[in-house]
Amino acid sequence: MSKGRVTIPTDDNFIKETLEIVEKWGADAIRDCDGFKLPREIKGLAERIYSTYFVARGDNAWAEANKEELQQTYLMTKHHVAAGETLTINIMDGYFAEQVQPDTYHDIKTWWEVIDRTTDEVVGVDSWSYDEEAQTVTIEGAKSWHEYTVSFLAYCIWDPTQMYNHITNNWGDKPHEMPFDARKPKTNEYIFKAMYKWLDENPESNVVRFTTFFYHFTLVFNDLAKEKFVDWFGYSSSVSPEALEAFEKAKGYRLRPEDIIDEGYYNSSFRVPSKQYMDYIDFQQQFVSENVKKLVDIVHEDGREAMMFLGDNWIGTEPYGKYFESIGMDGVVGSVGGGATLRMIADIPGVKYTEGRFLPYFFPDTFYEGNDPTIEAKENWITARRAIMRKPLDRIGYGGYLSLAYKFPKFVEYIEGVCNEFRDIYDNIAGSKPYCGLKVAVLNCWGKLRSWQTHMVAHALWYKQIYTYLGVIESLSGMSVDVNFISFEDIKETGIPSDIDVIINAGDAGTAFSGGDTWLDPQVITTVRQWIYNGGGFVGIGEPSAVLKGGHFFQLAEALGVDKELGFSLSTDKYFKTALDKHFITEDVIEAIDFGESQKNIYATKASTEIITYENGELLMSSNDYGKGRAVYIAGCPYSPQNTRILMRSFYYAAHKESEMKKWYADNLNCEVSAYLDTKKYAVINNTMESQSTMVYDGQGKAISIDLKPCEIRWMNI
Amino acid sequence: MSKGRVTIPTDDNFIKETLEIVEKWGADAIRDCDGFKLPREIKGLAERIYSTYFVARGDNAWAEANKEELQQTYLMTKHHVAAGETLTINIMDGYFAEQVQPDTYHDIKTWWEVIDRTTDEVVGVDSWSYDEEAQTVTIEGAKSWHEYTVSFLAYCIWDPTQMYNHITNNWGDKPHEMPFDARKPKTNEYIFKAMYKWLDENPESNVVRFTTFFYHFTLVFNDLAKEKFVDWFGYSSSVSPEALEAFEKAKGYRLRPEDIIDEGYYNSSFRVPSKQYMDYIDFQQQFVSENVKKLVDIVHEDGREAMMFLGDNWIGTEPYGKYFESIGMDGVVGSVGGGATLRMIADIPGVKYTEGRFLPYFFPDTFYEGNDPTIEAKENWITARRAIMRKPLDRIGYGGYLSLAYKFPKFVEYIEGVCNEFRDIYDNIAGSKPYCGLKVAVLNCWGKLRSWQTHMVAHALWYKQIYTYLGVIESLSGMSVDVNFISFEDIKETGIPSDIDVIINAGDAGTAFSGGDTWLDPQVITTVRQWIYNGGGFVGIGEPSAVLKGGHFFQLAEALGVDKELGFSLSTDKYFKTALDKHFITEDVIEAIDFGESQKNIYATKASTEIITYENGELLMSSNDYGKGRAVYIAGCPYSPQNTRILMRSFYYAAHKESEMKKWYADNLNCEVSAYLDTKKYAVINNTMESQSTMVYDGQGKAISIDLKPCEIRWMNI
Repeated sequence: MSKGRVTIPTDDNFIKETLEIVEKWGADAIRDCDGFKLPREIKGLAERIYSTYFVARGDNAWAEANKEELQQTYLMTKHHVAAGETLTINIMDGYFAEQVQPDTYHDIKTWWEVIDRTTDEVVGVDSWSYDEEAQTVTIEGAKSWHEYTVSFLAYCIWDPTQMYNHITNNWGDKPHEMPFDARKPKTNEYIFKAMYKWLDENPESNVVRFTTFFYHFTLVFNDLAKEKFVDWFGYSSSVSPEALEAFEKAKGYRLRPEDIIDEGYYNSSFRVPSKQYMDYIDFQQQFVSENVKKLVDIVHEDGREAMMFLGDNWIGTEPYGKYFESIGMDGVVGSVGGGATLRMIADIPGVKYTEGRFLPYFFPDTFYEGNDPTIEAKENWITARRAIMRKPLDRIGYGGYLSLAYKFPKFVEYIEGVCNEFRDIYDNIAGSKPYCGLKVAVLNCWGKLRSWQTHMVAHALWYKQIYTYLGVIESLSGMSVDVNFISFEDIKETGIPSDIDVIINAGDAGTAFSGGDTWLDPQVITTVRQWIYNGGGFVGIGEPSAVLKGGHFFQLAEALGVDKELGFSLSTDKYFKTALDKHFITEDVIEAIDFGESQKNIYATKASTEIITYENGELLMSSNDYGKGRAVYIAGCPYSPQNTRILMRSFYYAAHKESEMKKWYADNLNCEVSAYLDTKKYAVINNTMESQSTMVYDGQGKAISIDLKPCEIRWMNI
Repeated sequence: MSKGRVTIPTDDNFIKETLEIVEKWGADAIRDCDGFKLPREIKGLAERIYSTYFVARGDNAWAEANKEELQQTYLMTKHHVAAGETLTINIMDGYFAEQVQPDTYHDIKTWWEVIDRTTDEVVGVDSWSYDEEAQTVTIEGAKSWHEYTVSFLAYCIWDPTQMYNHITNNWGDKPHEMPFDARKPKTNEYIFKAMYKWLDENPESNVVRFTTFFYHFTLVFNDLAKEKFVDWFGYSSSVSPEALEAFEKAKGYRLRPEDIIDEGYYNSSFRVPSKQYMDYIDFQQQFVSENVKKLVDIVHEDGREAMMFLGDNWIGTEPYGKYFESIGMDGVVGSVGGGATLRMIADIPGVKYTEGRFLPYFFPDTFYEGNDPTIEAKENWITARRAIMRKPLDRIGYGGYLSLAYKFPKFVEYIEGVCNEFRDIYDNIAGSKPYCGLKVAVLNCWGKLRSWQTHMVAHALWYKQIYTYLGVIESLSGMSVDVNFISFEDIKETGIPSDIDVIINAGDAGTAFSGGDTWLDPQVITTVRQWIYNGGGFVGIGEPSAVLKGGHFFQLAEALGVDKELGFSLSTDKYFKTALDKHFITEDVIEAIDFGESQKNIYATKASTEIITYENGELLMSSNDYGKGRAVYIAGCPYSPQNTRILMRSFYYAAHKESEMKKWYADNLNCEVSAYLDTKKYAVINNTMESQSTMVYDGQGKAISIDLKPCEIRWMNI
């Protein structure tokens, strides 16, 4: 039986049972847990002991003594209409006074902004005043019936993660941890000293698990102490006068509060990012990475490893950012919700190892009498496994209270199997790259920076507006294609890499994922158009290349052979409404196709458009030849085995490589094949909880029939 | 038995039976029909004899001799991508050579335009050439991978209506009627002479039925001789060098071809109209009206009446246009598809009488053995009758072959009843205005000009994208409210009339009906906002006031209390998802509400928003108090009795006049009440083919119970 590559939590007075689980699961690492500190005697019980460390909170004495160095955030008030010349706005209306407070320490006339949202004009600083006691801004000489907002700088007086846990778990009078800002001079000095001190005081662990670093993603609560705004990628709580002044020096121009506020959208990753915001991200990533590197160096000097938790205070250390690799982090650990989140972790460049925290957490919401936690564990494992086959994590692990899990022997046994299966996969792959039939690129405004993170709002939560596109990423995570994330800036700078077979553009009109106004840049549209025309494959999902101009809504309408009716072209007769009887892309379809939120009013613009699916007066899937290339349209693609197959066939079809598809391929769409030519092994997985039979094709297209048990993985030699 | 107010067609050798029908239906007018000329002996058989007259076609000898004076149209080619520096475009590709031909008589470098649609730049005239034989434009020095179109001026060599009839009815080698242009000098002189001549040669009629005048709405066929583009309101076939030069003199600036071409949308009425296009409409309406007035004067001199058919060549004489009343037309006749089209005719100002042509036409598609034409007749009558109650036509009539209808005695009898019922209604109303509980205004870019014609593409056809909004107009046509159509320009010029209770804004984002960018005009948005805030009622349907700016998609989001999620505000938590148990607006609802195409992603922005309907994660109906006013949101409103009731209740609710609703009101939503206080009569109608019972409320709100037979109208004295 193999050993290692597995991390487990432990519990109070649970040493004996912990060792039992260590043995059973082959664990080589033990970690602490939120609200639970490892006992000293843990040292030596496993090869690796992880200790959680917070850089920017947890020392309220320091925070209290240096309140002007607390972290800050930009906030916008509600819209207020001026019914007369004087308008008074309660700036804290709707915000949680225990989380944020207006910053009057820095000059408000410099750092705040009052905006006439009806004209976009900034109200002159002489035309408004602030009443500190009432926390109101009063505008004099307001234009009647215009709407106004106040953008103000606030201090964060409660760390959002601790606040969340505190409120959720009713921690009562436990002190509110105040987050301090590594950019401020005294605090910057302090955090390095504190690091040394902590290492001295915590000799039991050999891995420092940073949770995480300097700035939390945007998480703001409302006046009812509930979440008001959450953006897993948001930078608005990383601002400060010091940062903005340093930005001006570094980039040569000054940011406005509005560059962060962004009409109240706070540069959500769905917004086509402005140059200012991209510059700000770059600026903060550089600062954070430089300073985190110093912390990591201290950890290394002490002979220990540094590990980063992907999430919470990760702003500036996004692992696909420009400066991340320079930090020299040893490992990254993150939570695995499915294939996409697994690849987000597994694909991180420049670290020695990656680790995935699997579901379920050992918490009472799952581990209660009468419930079977193996069900969630199985679903999580099957969903993640197909991604592991493409790019394995180096380690897996679990969180929560081990004593709870221990009470469910069936679960303990199931996880034993998972751990063995994982190590088996890892050993069989042995660092080699699986066979990829195609190279595909997801094209959007974010490119590499948001690899595997497109269309997400708050980590792994379901939103009605995103599952239709997240499905594409989830499908890709386990597909035998080479996946790249490229941005419009990339293709402007260096063109489209010549080895790309298919470009994917998926998203709602106007968003950074579809591209919005970016498509109006002649260089962008002509680069993509030329590339398709000369033989490239394009797969557009939802509202690809959508922005109204020049007689098209889809700027690639001529390539796609479809466009969306916005009402303006109703006068043009639509004649092409008949779907083909059969098509390469839908050959394996076994049930009604699920287009998720789908699209309305898509129509074929020419007779030559191959209509693949047409239902209730709506075109939902099509393909069109354009020059030597081909462009496929799909109205939406939530994750399912069938949609994964449809998507893969779309890629092969768009690339004109239909004949090459049946290599290392299973014709049963519930099964997938991964081949590792370097290690001369291949595996067939069953992604369902039922038995499956399938023909499996080898690299020459020679097929054999095999039967798989529920969830089975079958390894074979080449 | 009453007589008159009814027009019937006749037929070959059918004099005796015609007289029989005249007697039975009480008809006082006989009309000719397409392809059938009244016999001389018809004179005197009825009080009124109508003869169809075409002003601008029907004399091919003239047309042939003056080919340079044929009507013209602006056409745009398909989009063509430049794969290299030279790009050749076949300009007639996709057009019907028998209908249109490029105009090379006028200088093509002056009147044509080659456009780079990727940059919106006009290609210099030296960079392209035209091969007259091949009908191709060749661009030299094209920018690779940019898309180009050619806008060219063409001659119309076949009148669209005759072409349609010719092709549809297989008229074989019957000559193609060529349309000549009243603006060209020789033709202008000709049409007046022709009018005199025709009057001399056709003494049998006393009413000249113009079908219609100078310019056909845009109707272009494709290379398969099928409809390619149809816009009932389109002006693009009214252009010519002469017109455009006269425009320049009149308006002081020159139009570009693009002002007519409009990226290939040809200024569809869904497009927010440009100033240039509005100027052109005004310019053409003035010219057409002036010249039509001369024709009408000639008819009057001859002691006859002039009647206009609403449709076909009506461009320039739209009856709600600025100059229409100055023509002095006696009557207008149009086809009645339902309530909205009836009101479109009945409400026309400045004519002595209006006439509606009812369905079905006496054509073999309905009048065939085994079919019951009374079914369609009944539906048509019931739908139209509720509008007649609000504003009656002065006359009704039928079209087709009388000999066909004659073979269906049940039908003949049913129409006898309709004719009597119509005359009864007309006499009881006696020109008085029915009681209106509220004054509502439909606000869009077109205002009065397109009264009752909003959201239409081709007259009375069903389109998936319009029925959801057409329903609002159809509901209004028979509702006991005073209906006005106002434009954004109106409210900029004169504000919102003080007696308006409710403003309705209905349509898809970006369209002229919703308003698109017009809402970004501070004067527009502040005028509406102020008006609501000070007590006005607003009902927004679909995507009212929608255009992304300043943190809102609905510019009236603060008033409506709802906005639409485009993805940018997903980070903002949405907490308000619970519909009220009951609400004034939905009190009468008896079945699932039909929102038609409905809307996705509408959400309440504040706790105070009253959510009236919330289904499958979508807000579909709501209300919000804003200052002293109120704004109701409805996701869509196709026509039905129930939606009519919902709409009416929305108006009363928005206007804060709930307590005044039950006056001249029937609580059964299948019934409606119209009260004529001047003539001291009121009527209750049953809009269904089933019996109905209802409480009927008088002007004091006193109720009585009454039972109505299917389709019944019950008259009572006040």
